[in-house]
Amino acid sequence: MTTWKDFADLKAVRRLEELARNPYNLARPDSLPPERIAACKASACGFDLLYATQRIDDEVLAALQDLAVEAGLIEQFKTMKSGAVMNRIIGQASEERQVLHTASRDVFSDAPLAPAATAQAKEQLSRLKQFLADVDSGAICNEQGEPFIAMLQVGIGGSDLGPRALYLALEKYRLPGRKAAFIANVDPDDAAAVLASLDLSRTLINVVSKSGTTLETRTNEELVRAALVHAGLNPTRHLVAVTGAGSPMDDPAKYLAAFHMYDYIGGRYSATSMVGGVTLGFALGYDAFIEVLRGAHEMDNTAEQQDIRTNLPLLMAMLGIWNRNFLGYNTVAVLPYSQALLRFPAHLQQCDMESNGKQVSRLGTPVTWKTGPIVWGEPGTNGQHAFYQLIHQGTETVPTEFIGFRRPQHGSDITVSGTTSQQKLVANMLAQSLALALGREHENPNKRFTGNRPSSVLITDQLTPYTMGALLALYENRIALQGFCWNINSFDQEGVQLGKVLADRLLGVLAGTKVLGPDAPESSLLKAAGMVSGQQ
Amino acid sequence: MTTWKDFADLKAVRRLEELARNPYNLARPDSLPPERIAACKASACGFDLLYATQRIDDEVLAALQDLAVEAGLIEQFKTMKSGAVMNRIIGQASEERQVLHTASRDVFSDAPLAPAATAQAKEQLSRLKQFLADVDSGAICNEQGEPFIAMLQVGIGGSDLGPRALYLALEKYRLPGRKAAFIANVDPDDAAAVLASLDLSRTLINVVSKSGTTLETRTNEELVRAALVHAGLNPTRHLVAVTGAGSPMDDPAKYLAAFHMYDYIGGRYSATSMVGGVTLGFALGYDAFIEVLRGAHEMDNTAEQQDIRTNLPLLMAMLGIWNRNFLGYNTVAVLPYSQALLRFPAHLQQCDMESNGKQVSRLGTPVTWKTGPIVWGEPGTNGQHAFYQLIHQGTETVPTEFIGFRRPQHGSDITVSGTTSQQKLVANMLAQSLALALGREHENPNKRFTGNRPSSVLITDQLTPYTMGALLALYENRIALQGFCWNINSFDQEGVQLGKVLADRLLGVLAGTKVLGPDAPESSLLKAAGMVSGQQ
Repeated sequence: MTTWKDFADLKAVRRLEELARNPYNLARPDSLPPERIAACKASACGFDLLYATQRIDDEVLAALQDLAVEAGLIEQFKTMKSGAVMNRIIGQASEERQVLHTASRDVFSDAPLAPAATAQAKEQLSRLKQFLADVDSGAICNEQGEPFIAMLQVGIGGSDLGPRALYLALEKYRLPGRKAAFIANVDPDDAAAVLASLDLSRTLINVVSKSGTTLETRTNEELVRAALVHAGLNPTRHLVAVTGAGSPMDDPAKYLAAFHMYDYIGGRYSATSMVGGVTLGFALGYDAFIEVLRGAHEMDNTAEQQDIRTNLPLLMAMLGIWNRNFLGYNTVAVLPYSQALLRFPAHLQQCDMESNGKQVSRLGTPVTWKTGPIVWGEPGTNGQHAFYQLIHQGTETVPTEFIGFRRPQHGSDITVSGTTSQQKLVANMLAQSLALALGREHENPNKRFTGNRPSSVLITDQLTPYTMGALLALYENRIALQGFCWNINSFDQEGVQLGKVLADRLLGVLAGTKVLGPDAPESSLLKAAGMVSGQQ
Repeated sequence: MTTWKDFADLKAVRRLEELARNPYNLARPDSLPPERIAACKASACGFDLLYATQRIDDEVLAALQDLAVEAGLIEQFKTMKSGAVMNRIIGQASEERQVLHTASRDVFSDAPLAPAATAQAKEQLSRLKQFLADVDSGAICNEQGEPFIAMLQVGIGGSDLGPRALYLALEKYRLPGRKAAFIANVDPDDAAAVLASLDLSRTLINVVSKSGTTLETRTNEELVRAALVHAGLNPTRHLVAVTGAGSPMDDPAKYLAAFHMYDYIGGRYSATSMVGGVTLGFALGYDAFIEVLRGAHEMDNTAEQQDIRTNLPLLMAMLGIWNRNFLGYNTVAVLPYSQALLRFPAHLQQCDMESNGKQVSRLGTPVTWKTGPIVWGEPGTNGQHAFYQLIHQGTETVPTEFIGFRRPQHGSDITVSGTTSQQKLVANMLAQSLALALGREHENPNKRFTGNRPSSVLITDQLTPYTMGALLALYENRIALQGFCWNINSFDQEGVQLGKVLADRLLGVLAGTKVLGPDAPESSLLKAAGMVSGQQ
């Protein structure tokens, strides 16, 4: 196995620190000649990444390549794909798990890198295929013999954001008469509104929880079960589960079917497992879900290449490291010029920040370098009429990742003033990238743009199940490669535990099952918030 | 008029810099005694702000009060409300406009501060009341004589985000059989999907553009008009406009009605004008919209108080300045524990970042201090299963603003393990605030929480039209007060211009109406993106 080295100990880091003293200035005259724009382009799985508008030159790119080699990023990636225990902290109690979300889509080759996990993925896919065929044929139907037309996914975090983002992205490819809906939050208002929008008698409920004990999900499941009973329906005819084998939810008496998820796939990397597969397969069809897997799989293969100029996930990872650790920018904006990708930034926010928002290295010591940035974003062009002001003229520099498509998903477009809406979307996206880079001098200081703000543009022909799968895997792999580079464990989430512990204490007080001293901050805060008597 | 002083020249800034060398440590033992939690609570318009978990003490609070006084923030706020030209840069060509969004809700008193603007607001309200009464009575109906059941708002930026966020927040209060929908982006896929979800024959279209020339909005209007004609409907029976008097859209031949907006209300502050009023009034009823205005108006009154301990917008503004300029944190997370507030962070992102993402002071010189932070957020508890890892254990500190409600909007809640879903929401929110502050020691470094991460909790009984209006104005006023303190113009948006100029050039190339040299970066980028022939 590759030796894990701390980021601060890498020679290439010294070199990059030197280069960062005088990074490429995008705002100087002729900073973007045609040959630079042509050369700074990498392609994979139908995607082109245009990165001339990053603050890099050939020397920086070479040093980033050296960094990738020195840290053994590609070896680590292949090791991960082959089933090594990458979810661990050396010398400390840790999860000690394999990391095999890639196996869930390594189903196209005869010699998968992690045969056991891929065999499990294939078995679940085959069960899903049969289940969906039974739904199609009417063998699975409601008590009146009517076909199911909707699936409501009940999950939270990784059991919600990825599948939801993908469903919204691909809603245009729904099977006729099928749709999906989602409940995540323990917000009774939200659940009530979603339930009201569905014909429960013709809705399958897909409850997703690896442990089978997630508080929000179990609470929402109870709420949905109560709604079914209230409507005179038999919950067992409507509920399916996606859960770990042997969990409290892995129970044929309570569910129509239980599909399995495995502890070698973290929630935030689980969209291509049954966590995404059941609902996407129901709504879009089994074949469309397989296309998602194919796109992801091909991007996984791309991520095995050593060359930063052809390995798109590696290139994006290293450009991110350059911006984060050497130029000192602490946020990243992901701005898709596609309304269908509305929730993709939220999914990435989870996937990236939960993976790389860490302060301890895999050697068990506090890091002395910056790890994961804050990730945020909204679809353009909406954002242009909103927060772009700060991106262009604020006192913070925000590295920006644009995502666009040359053609719409629908045929229906309209030509106004000589261009289609889709052309307007792409033109706006490219214009923003140029404006951020070039800036503009002006005699009025308020109309001046300092420029020299880095961005890149990711573009492909069309948002389809295949390209959505590839895009998902591109980001998943970028995140893992960055985590390897920072020498952190991108696959645990200890940082969410303390809030749970404290929430349990507060809930104990509210339920009357726990008594805390009057000086406990929990007691005072509940009082101040007007949640218990003795309100202050 | 108060003299505008640069932030760096204020005496209180020196004092705060000193205090920031040793800020309150939330992670030391007994950092949150009952008396601190009880004392650090401010209330207005039914909201309580709990701020014991900010890194402040009495000295800091006193210095922040001094800063507010020295910078004349409340005087400036009152001056703004009274109609002074606050949208300007001294000595430079600038918009030179009044800033009177507060006038749109100063309709309850007999002596409004800006009588002319409030008279215009009242006139528009009275026209809206009549229009809605005509819709209710059937005097306004479709060609078949059927009542309208939906309103589709077509706008972008300020003509979209605020009204959309408020509609989603208050959807539970819809009139029976009424709903609203929104199109913003020039994304043909999005428009097609929204149109497909509506019965166009019974839908009013509300096109919102102050200038009447906004590219995205006009494009989407054309698309909707084409869809109406395609469905055999007469657009003039379906379209209403909200626009500036005399704009190309202020045309009775083309619209059923045209409501007016005024250049003294910026787009991002326009939700309480007709920009929000027409759609909210249609969907929720005129009286509910008036309740939104009442809440906003009462919070505007609160914002006139000098005392930082009772003026909630001022307190939040100054805590933000403390975190931004003295503790050095460059982002703010807004995390509502309410799914109905799903889009409220996106609205705030616009309102805050477009207002205060500025680099030139109102004296026309580049600022030497930090201005507006990056604002982002998602509803809890979803976020707890996502990006909270980074907030708790990442290498960045993110000041966090929680927003919660003691009671749900719906009656339907469910008790599981002795607590309701709403109690779980609030308990989780308070627990996060405590966990961020207190942290936790642990022998395993990966289970350690450093704590000392600041947050505050804003809580009220229920999300209603009144509290939504108050919440909106709380943030609007916080933003304006911060802008005054930074001595920037929070009411223009020159930073969005360059992107528009460059987009027009690119669109000219795509439409064949503009020829650029082959060395122009626009040409190379269009080629590299595969948008014109000669693809590289």
